[in-house]
Amino acid sequence: MNFASDNTAGVSKAIFDAILSANEAFSSPYGTDPWTARALSLLREVFETDLVCFLVTTGTAANALALGALTPPWGAVFCHAQAHVMEDECGAPEMFTSGAKLVGIAGEGGKIALASLAAALATFERGNVHHVQPAALSLSQATEYGTVYSLDEIAELSEIAHAAGLAVHMDGARFPNALVALGCTPAEMSWKAGIDVLCFGATKNGALACEALIFFDPAKAANLPYQRKRSGHTLSKGRFLGAQMAAYLENGHWLTLAKTANAQAKLLAEGLAKIPGVRLPFLPQANEIFAILPERVDVALKKAGANYYDWPWPREEGTALAAGEKFVRLVTTFMTADIEIEQFLAVAGRSARSDAND
Amino acid sequence: MNFASDNTAGVSKAIFDAILSANEAFSSPYGTDPWTARALSLLREVFETDLVCFLVTTGTAANALALGALTPPWGAVFCHAQAHVMEDECGAPEMFTSGAKLVGIAGEGGKIALASLAAALATFERGNVHHVQPAALSLSQATEYGTVYSLDEIAELSEIAHAAGLAVHMDGARFPNALVALGCTPAEMSWKAGIDVLCFGATKNGALACEALIFFDPAKAANLPYQRKRSGHTLSKGRFLGAQMAAYLENGHWLTLAKTANAQAKLLAEGLAKIPGVRLPFLPQANEIFAILPERVDVALKKAGANYYDWPWPREEGTALAAGEKFVRLVTTFMTADIEIEQFLAVAGRSARSDAND
Amino acid sequence: MNFASDNTAGVSKAIFDAILSANEAFSSPYGTDPWTARALSLLREVFETDLVCFLVTTGTAANALALGALTPPWGAVFCHAQAHVMEDECGAPEMFTSGAKLVGIAGEGGKIALASLAAALATFERGNVHHVQPAALSLSQATEYGTVYSLDEIAELSEIAHAAGLAVHMDGARFPNALVALGCTPAEMSWKAGIDVLCFGATKNGALACEALIFFDPAKAANLPYQRKRSGHTLSKGRFLGAQMAAYLENGHWLTLAKTANAQAKLLAEGLAKIPGVRLPFLPQANEIFAILPERVDVALKKAGANYYDWPWPREEGTALAAGEKFVRLVTTFMTADIEIEQFLAVAGRSARSDAND
Amino acid sequence: MNFASDNTAGVSKAIFDAILSANEAFSSPYGTDPWTARALSLLREVFETDLVCFLVTTGTAANALALGALTPPWGAVFCHAQAHVMEDECGAPEMFTSGAKLVGIAGEGGKIALASLAAALATFERGNVHHVQPAALSLSQATEYGTVYSLDEIAELSEIAHAAGLAVHMDGARFPNALVALGCTPAEMSWKAGIDVLCFGATKNGALACEALIFFDPAKAANLPYQRKRSGHTLSKGRFLGAQMAAYLENGHWLTLAKTANAQAKLLAEGLAKIPGVRLPFLPQANEIFAILPERVDVALKKAGANYYDWPWPREEGTALAAGEKFVRLVTTFMTADIEIEQFLAVAGRSARSDAND
Repeated sequence: MNFASDNTAGVSKAIFDAILSANEAFSSPYGTDPWTARALSLLREVFETDLVCFLVTTGTAANALALGALTPPWGAVFCHAQAHVMEDECGAPEMFTSGAKLVGIAGEGGKIALASLAAALATFERGNVHHVQPAALSLSQATEYGTVYSLDEIAELSEIAHAAGLAVHMDGARFPNALVALGCTPAEMSWKAGIDVLCFGATKNGALACEALIFFDPAKAANLPYQRKRSGHTLSKGRFLGAQMAAYLENGHWLTLAKTANAQAKLLAEGLAKIPGVRLPFLPQANEIFAILPERVDVALKKAGANYYDWPWPREEGTALAAGEKFVRLVTTFMTADIEIEQFLAVAGRSARSDAND
Repeated sequence: MNFASDNTAGVSKAIFDAILSANEAFSSPYGTDPWTARALSLLREVFETDLVCFLVTTGTAANALALGALTPPWGAVFCHAQAHVMEDECGAPEMFTSGAKLVGIAGEGGKIALASLAAALATFERGNVHHVQPAALSLSQATEYGTVYSLDEIAELSEIAHAAGLAVHMDGARFPNALVALGCTPAEMSWKAGIDVLCFGATKNGALACEALIFFDPAKAANLPYQRKRSGHTLSKGRFLGAQMAAYLENGHWLTLAKTANAQAKLLAEGLAKIPGVRLPFLPQANEIFAILPERVDVALKKAGANYYDWPWPREEGTALAAGEKFVRLVTTFMTADIEIEQFLAVAGRSARSDAND
Repeated sequence: MNFASDNTAGVSKAIFDAILSANEAFSSPYGTDPWTARALSLLREVFETDLVCFLVTTGTAANALALGALTPPWGAVFCHAQAHVMEDECGAPEMFTSGAKLVGIAGEGGKIALASLAAALATFERGNVHHVQPAALSLSQATEYGTVYSLDEIAELSEIAHAAGLAVHMDGARFPNALVALGCTPAEMSWKAGIDVLCFGATKNGALACEALIFFDPAKAANLPYQRKRSGHTLSKGRFLGAQMAAYLENGHWLTLAKTANAQAKLLAEGLAKIPGVRLPFLPQANEIFAILPERVDVALKKAGANYYDWPWPREEGTALAAGEKFVRLVTTFMTADIEIEQFLAVAGRSARSDAND
Repeated sequence: MNFASDNTAGVSKAIFDAILSANEAFSSPYGTDPWTARALSLLREVFETDLVCFLVTTGTAANALALGALTPPWGAVFCHAQAHVMEDECGAPEMFTSGAKLVGIAGEGGKIALASLAAALATFERGNVHHVQPAALSLSQATEYGTVYSLDEIAELSEIAHAAGLAVHMDGARFPNALVALGCTPAEMSWKAGIDVLCFGATKNGALACEALIFFDPAKAANLPYQRKRSGHTLSKGRFLGAQMAAYLENGHWLTLAKTANAQAKLLAEGLAKIPGVRLPFLPQANEIFAILPERVDVALKKAGANYYDWPWPREEGTALAAGEKFVRLVTTFMTADIEIEQFLAVAGRSARSDAND
């Protein structure tokens, strides 16, 4: 019963086979190989537009490089107060921007509230040298709480940002899961909605270690090759990144993987919702479920070997937890088997009822 | 006939199989997996000492993280004037040290001359706030020109450095090739000779993307976990780094790979030495050969499809090239086949003689 | 009627005369002069303890150097959400710490609330590489809203910080005004209450350009000489900083200046409080008054030539402004004359009453 | 007998009086005052062109801010191997450029040799991500060894730099002394010769602490206001910088000061040249004299109370010092009195002759 993280899953067979087949002969290094070229070509097809892309091994690298390209050291990046770039990258955006400031914006369910963004932007006086200058907006899709921005929400936030002269970055570590949830096209959820730079995740969705940093405006990427090299993220045997990304995109493999993960999350969420005492404070739209569990349920699950993380309760979200409640995160992946979900729900259900009967 | 770079070779079968077998089930992320633990255990065995290690995907990351751990922003790193950290990492050491200064030291054949290091150190006044303060010495083993420091040379340079309060870093992107050339133990070529921090290369020697950043003094590594994460080099599916490194070390696989590469270099170098007009300015001790080719030979080889790089002639090395001479680099790897060398030498020999007959 | 800023005032006569007298002959550079030595000696006397100090020309430099000495790039600095280091230094702390993160803590009247600090600290998991690590607490005394922490408040906040392993910095750009307000000793308001590093302001209180960066623990200052030089803040003719600071401290001159500024603020605040429609949302304890003015009063004052800044209403403070109200800041200094205050109050009073009569 | 540094002299009377007169009333802060406006106007007059300027307190700040404006973190700055930016600013350029690389170019007498610059530039492959990218050339006028580039030399070096896409910076800490030596106009020695950004020194030539960072191309200065603030170099009472610079420029006061310093250097150099055993390895063109003294002369001078610095012998300059020779630097200033020179020469002459008689 492993629901700890997308990172605990492995590599899909199709992607693994592609890595293997890229290993057959000598090839040119640093991303000048045919697999990387094929990946770029597929990305252009999938996103229905011209674009430039840089393949790297981690989401932190992709996000930090993206923000480094969009923000000067005296710039400000607006993001959700609990965004990954804000809380979970040990200051990588600050390192790659040479010290820019991230400004956390409140908003329920991991989504930046439109009014809060507007209010925050208004406090930064342009041209006033005492203040850092607004430079970028960063959206996470899916969000840190497993919710998904609608196309309209993305477009409205982007519009505010663009009107204020900011570039818009999307942390798409779970882009595929969000896309499947919305049922729209990749173009609709990115550049057509105002996204300038997208970190398009594959690692959490079945790749070994591969993220595509995509610039829809090539001019913004002019210095990226140097920034990538200088941060140690230009792989010498770059073909293995290209092979992962190409296989990921071929025949909609990436969507198949995400559909599985989302479907399993749905199954799990629906099961949980029926268990007495369990609450789901955020709508689980992608492959993450945040649940409030009665303590006895949590204890029983862990005793039964279920693997998942306790999660810090977001301060700004309405009511606090009741005594004896636990806030936890459950993540499903393309590898999550039905049996794991059934077992999990069985243990949870049993312990909840025994609790009720005390 | 591919002699362009170690990076153009692929992944050895043993290492690939290990990656595959690590993919079978869920595993804990960020290097908390059994493969990474096994790699650490093997490194301790191979180096006959306690040590801490961090696995990363590129040599540039390993070097820059190492120097970042050893050098404050107001520090100076002494290295060879043509060292990889100086010339080929687009300023990664400067980025990871928040702006330290690299001081290039001259020396023939890619080796830092003892007297030049001493002279350079003497020009930095300690405690004088106008000057950056000496913090680290960085040695490349094998060097940028395919030569290898003797154990005595390493020990003497380390001794000068330590006496001056500097830590000693070894860029061991080709550590295995140098080790095989010297025929000594890994311990002798590292901590026993005064090395404090070693970047132990695997990528150039048959791994997919894996370098071990090794601290022989764990205290110096205290902040490395944050520095690695913050630079985007903490892989989520860390088991795939662990699996590479473990397989690389099991049963001396890494030495087998390096021995093959070195043997092929020896074959190629001996063949080249017999060809009229070809000169080898540096002793080819590891798996790189730097050769001066008559222009006609160079033209004939490239026409025949040989793949190798022209190389900038190092300014400080004695005599200049004669008119019509080309300076080139040839690299052999564990994948280099005898037939490639034979073909290369045949074309070179034929064109050289036809040249002589003109 | 100039109430725009302490920065609009000039230099006190005693300080100016000291600069002049330091100019009479050759002197040794970079702070190795007798005036700087005298300043250090006086600081030790005034603070009743051993200490090391670095004189610089701006408060931003002093604060940023202080935080740079206390915080690694992967560190977090906790400060009030509206602190000067957070909002008014264009990212200087981020620059001098090579990219640390400032975490804004809420609290009424510019003061960090004890519970909020504790709550914020609790969200940072120690040793978890995904999170920046708490490194320093920064308090502003007097605060950005003209209020003053009590000795107990400072001690309690410091205690929480120290217990969590943080160093405590005090931004004392208006330290003298706060000290006069509390009527305690400099030692009581600094190291005795747990302050490790103090930026002791003089510029706002009658110096030309001089701030003392004081370390009560000399060990923490070990690298400061390099950090200061490297940021361009080591003045060659350092004696002119020493002369300012020495004259500032001689015979309690600094306290005399601050007493005047505070007394004038009291006079102004008391007068304002009597004017119908004027509200003072924060208790004016030092030399700054934050006032909510009816629009007509604001218009009349500006028309009469009064010089002061509109101020952004702090979002988190309870009620919003009513329509037609202006939030403004008024600052008094050692140069503020009684007549200016009388004129200001007269205009304000007249316009307020005419308003009431409409 | 003080010949230690220009920094040991004080402030000229005209400049001091200007500071005093700027102190009479309230004034607007951060350089929005009339004195700063006047300084800008005078600079435009003196340089016969439009320009933007930023006044700061130290030469290190001016240089580092200049290079920060011209060079990205992955850029290279070419300068003389012994340039102040290279050796005497504790890495400030690296800090302000977020880690760019300074490339030291050899050249006799502190001057960059044209051929060496061209050769160095040729080794950096444009667009090759492994290499930092050439971004700026930095010239020191006068040089670190008291010599002065001719207008032709500046123009030729600038031309090479511009042709290669580099911006050209002049470290003019002793610009006035060089200008007086050449007898040309400020425009001729700066923008007319290809200089894009000039650090125009005043501190060493009679100001308290004031340097003008001048951009002849305003577009290059677009971000400077933020970079200055963020580095703590935006003085709140900015009028005192404006007052210094304005008084410095009024009525050619700066030239008068420099003429005095240069004339005294000439007197001293001519006297030294006549003393047996004393050698002047570099032509003293400005206000610095580098002399090789017989040991006995050095001892006698120091015993007599003469104040000057021993200097490290530049490695690359031809012959080494003979045994018993000292290499020293002597600096004259606007405050240097004839009597000091006479005394110095008398002691030196006497000890040299007694030496010869031994």
